[in-house]
Amino acid sequence: MTKTSSGNFFEDFAVGQVIRHATPRTLTVGDVSLYSALYGTRFAVQSADSFAQDLGYPRAPIDDLLVFHMVFGKTVPDISLNAVANLGYAGGRFLAPVYPGDTLTAVSEVIGVRENSNGQSGVVYVRSSGFNQDGVEVLDYVRWVMVRKKDPSLPAPEPVVPTLPAALAPDALGDAVPALDIEAWRFDLSGSPARFADYEVGERIDHVDGMTVEEAEHMIATRLYQNTAKVHFNQFTEGQGRFGRRLIYGGHVISIARALSFNGLGNAFHVAAINAGRHVAPLFAGLTVHAWSEILDTAAIPGRDDVGALRVRTVATKDRPCADFPYKDGDEYDPSVILDLDYWVLIPH
Amino acid sequence: MTKTSSGNFFEDFAVGQVIRHATPRTLTVGDVSLYSALYGTRFAVQSADSFAQDLGYPRAPIDDLLVFHMVFGKTVPDISLNAVANLGYAGGRFLAPVYPGDTLTAVSEVIGVRENSNGQSGVVYVRSSGFNQDGVEVLDYVRWVMVRKKDPSLPAPEPVVPTLPAALAPDALGDAVPALDIEAWRFDLSGSPARFADYEVGERIDHVDGMTVEEAEHMIATRLYQNTAKVHFNQFTEGQGRFGRRLIYGGHVISIARALSFNGLGNAFHVAAINAGRHVAPLFAGLTVHAWSEILDTAAIPGRDDVGALRVRTVATKDRPCADFPYKDGDEYDPSVILDLDYWVLIPH
Amino acid sequence: MTKTSSGNFFEDFAVGQVIRHATPRTLTVGDVSLYSALYGTRFAVQSADSFAQDLGYPRAPIDDLLVFHMVFGKTVPDISLNAVANLGYAGGRFLAPVYPGDTLTAVSEVIGVRENSNGQSGVVYVRSSGFNQDGVEVLDYVRWVMVRKKDPSLPAPEPVVPTLPAALAPDALGDAVPALDIEAWRFDLSGSPARFADYEVGERIDHVDGMTVEEAEHMIATRLYQNTAKVHFNQFTEGQGRFGRRLIYGGHVISIARALSFNGLGNAFHVAAINAGRHVAPLFAGLTVHAWSEILDTAAIPGRDDVGALRVRTVATKDRPCADFPYKDGDEYDPSVILDLDYWVLIPH
Repeated sequence: MTKTSSGNFFEDFAVGQVIRHATPRTLTVGDVSLYSALYGTRFAVQSADSFAQDLGYPRAPIDDLLVFHMVFGKTVPDISLNAVANLGYAGGRFLAPVYPGDTLTAVSEVIGVRENSNGQSGVVYVRSSGFNQDGVEVLDYVRWVMVRKKDPSLPAPEPVVPTLPAALAPDALGDAVPALDIEAWRFDLSGSPARFADYEVGERIDHVDGMTVEEAEHMIATRLYQNTAKVHFNQFTEGQGRFGRRLIYGGHVISIARALSFNGLGNAFHVAAINAGRHVAPLFAGLTVHAWSEILDTAAIPGRDDVGALRVRTVATKDRPCADFPYKDGDEYDPSVILDLDYWVLIPH
Repeated sequence: MTKTSSGNFFEDFAVGQVIRHATPRTLTVGDVSLYSALYGTRFAVQSADSFAQDLGYPRAPIDDLLVFHMVFGKTVPDISLNAVANLGYAGGRFLAPVYPGDTLTAVSEVIGVRENSNGQSGVVYVRSSGFNQDGVEVLDYVRWVMVRKKDPSLPAPEPVVPTLPAALAPDALGDAVPALDIEAWRFDLSGSPARFADYEVGERIDHVDGMTVEEAEHMIATRLYQNTAKVHFNQFTEGQGRFGRRLIYGGHVISIARALSFNGLGNAFHVAAINAGRHVAPLFAGLTVHAWSEILDTAAIPGRDDVGALRVRTVATKDRPCADFPYKDGDEYDPSVILDLDYWVLIPH
Repeated sequence: MTKTSSGNFFEDFAVGQVIRHATPRTLTVGDVSLYSALYGTRFAVQSADSFAQDLGYPRAPIDDLLVFHMVFGKTVPDISLNAVANLGYAGGRFLAPVYPGDTLTAVSEVIGVRENSNGQSGVVYVRSSGFNQDGVEVLDYVRWVMVRKKDPSLPAPEPVVPTLPAALAPDALGDAVPALDIEAWRFDLSGSPARFADYEVGERIDHVDGMTVEEAEHMIATRLYQNTAKVHFNQFTEGQGRFGRRLIYGGHVISIARALSFNGLGNAFHVAAINAGRHVAPLFAGLTVHAWSEILDTAAIPGRDDVGALRVRTVATKDRPCADFPYKDGDEYDPSVILDLDYWVLIPH
């Protein structure tokens, strides 16, 4: 019996396979404080019980991205321990609020496999779901990763590539937010006067501030999420590898960008869906992250008059302020771009 | 509508103006643990519920300086985002205890403005107050900052410089401490045998130990406080600036000095007032903080026989042990000095 | 009256002496989150309330090593502030579970003293015990440290060297674990299929992964434990010392090794005893820790059919993967070895 896990390789995945992940994790106010300390997030609903309660929450909910990272972390030992690259996300939905004291578990289903033409690796598509201690699904999302084959001589499986939506539809948004008494929203306390109607499609916002990342910070964050991907932690090995240093967990960049986006999207309190996400280039410690956003779409949510939805593209860069909105030159990303994230946020009407 | 805040400039402040700050923040045991981990503080009242409860507290109160940093942090986006320098503090009072679960908000009133003779900047004086979720004021203090003018062609305002007390009077101290059953104070558990009567005016104490600061630590602390001052976080910009590196939040130095002062002031469990404070020189990561204190005064508190007050000057240095009490040469501070803090602490009779 | 403590020297210790340590400390979910973030531990019992409750715990207990560090930290100002070296541990027993909200205090008894032949220092043996707020003993262990003499001219005390057990007996194990409904153990959630019966005496397990340590991380951890040993924190002084840099608290290495051991010992959820431990060589920031384990013994616990005990030797190294199990060459440790820890863990039948 082999006691240590060496993770799954491309040939270990088959469409339809369901993987229940270790380790269940109770989220607490300790995690909330660490999340705050790591990113400096300031959205009022997640920051203050009193603000959340005035709106109708039982207490401040846990930041959506902290929930995402906790679920993602659980999937790593089974899905991406032998990943060459984390290629993308789609169809991410936040389905129920998570509060301190809730315990999360995660399950993934393999929904696609496609071997690369070199026969050395392939792309695996999984839909991962997070559940609370009552079995309520709180999150699901699709991601696809390039995974090494252990035995390149094995035949390629029948390719299956799932059809993924370009974006979640507005009526799929908001399940993680109770009906809010939006009259109780204190714009003087939330840090921004801007409501749903103040944003226009095509509007671009430079989030101005920058955040430098240290090795200790991204490792503390990534361990908090129980994410075991080796590339983030082992300088001895990575020092001999392709980049000569530790790679920063892509989700760390997402959370930095989201925290920076408060300056411009201060009332956009809830990430309701991740339509598409791509880690365009790696980030390393010592570099500084800036971000800008574009409003891609705005939508009412059927049946709700408390909050509306903004579809946002947030672009994060390394060592490059974003006053001129660096993005692409033709099909090529600007070399400073590290993250291209398309998502829905909710904001008061 | 401009969505991003670029902060207030000198000309945006007027005497009498009241500014309600974002973001309300619920303090939790998670914040307490992080505060402990960042500074290594060991005062028994704040460290142990049982110790505090034996004295009459409902549970361990939150460290006074953590409360201070949380309130201070809220004021930054409105008061000091465009500050050239944080010049000083005075008249700081801790007015009510704060416990895990309490939510703090902050309000500032402009109480003075004085343009500098160069016409490029001016000094703004504000009194900032922190409130809990029940509207009880838990803290107030005055600080003054030098803020850039955005439009130097604007005329100077009528100068108003508030009269500030050199020190709080003893009868203004202790509101944040319930009447204590001081017989229950366990000197064998508190780490020091020294009581109020053991300290003499003029006595100097070298706190012996030193603490080196890392970039990750001061950034984690400063984000925990939701303090958004750019100079602490952005190496890309600061690398091109006046110091070539990130500045450490002055409050981080105050908390390090306070934690070091445990070795010599172990029973001085409560910071009751900040009489005057000055960040004499900046601190950078990699440097080591030492501290020493002088007892400036001792005072009974009218109506209380449980605790007395010591007025203390704590001086912190960088890369300089304090066995010989480095301070000033004439009017000039020793080049090692980074903090000169005059405050009242309470200690059992 | 001297207000600052300079710690005890060799001549200050006498056999039979009992020292009550400051500062009592309430452990919280904040500490649990930090412990998780610092080490990335993934044992399910400590990670999830629901997992622990299904087995019969009232909630997830606090990690045994976090309890150990908290008790150890309290002893430092009295026992090892003037220590030249922390020589070893033995006879460590975990006697009762600790939960968030419990407050720990610590007491040590001097059980041996032996002056070194050079007359400059001596070895002090102490048995330290941790208690919760109800006076229940939760932990005890023996450690011995080499401590400087302050006055080398003093005569040597009568040498007393305690007899220490090579290992705890199986019937001394398990007091910190309630009777468990072991049928409820979810092996699909715990991260490993291996039970008690799957391990064999002599079996060696490479834990595969490595963890690089940063200065900020070990200082944050060591302050969290209120461990005041100067060598961990003061680069100004240590830069002029024997190693030119800060030493990492040995307990930090133990916790890293324990967290790494999850990959191979995933169901070994409880450290029941520390038979013997030695910090073979110092660790410094920037180096990477790997670990491997050998099963030294297996034992049923009298009267329990829920869990059995594995006696494990875990060896940690610096900048050296452990696929070939580096340990000793004759009596000499491999130069990469930093920790040699012999302990009992409990694991489901």
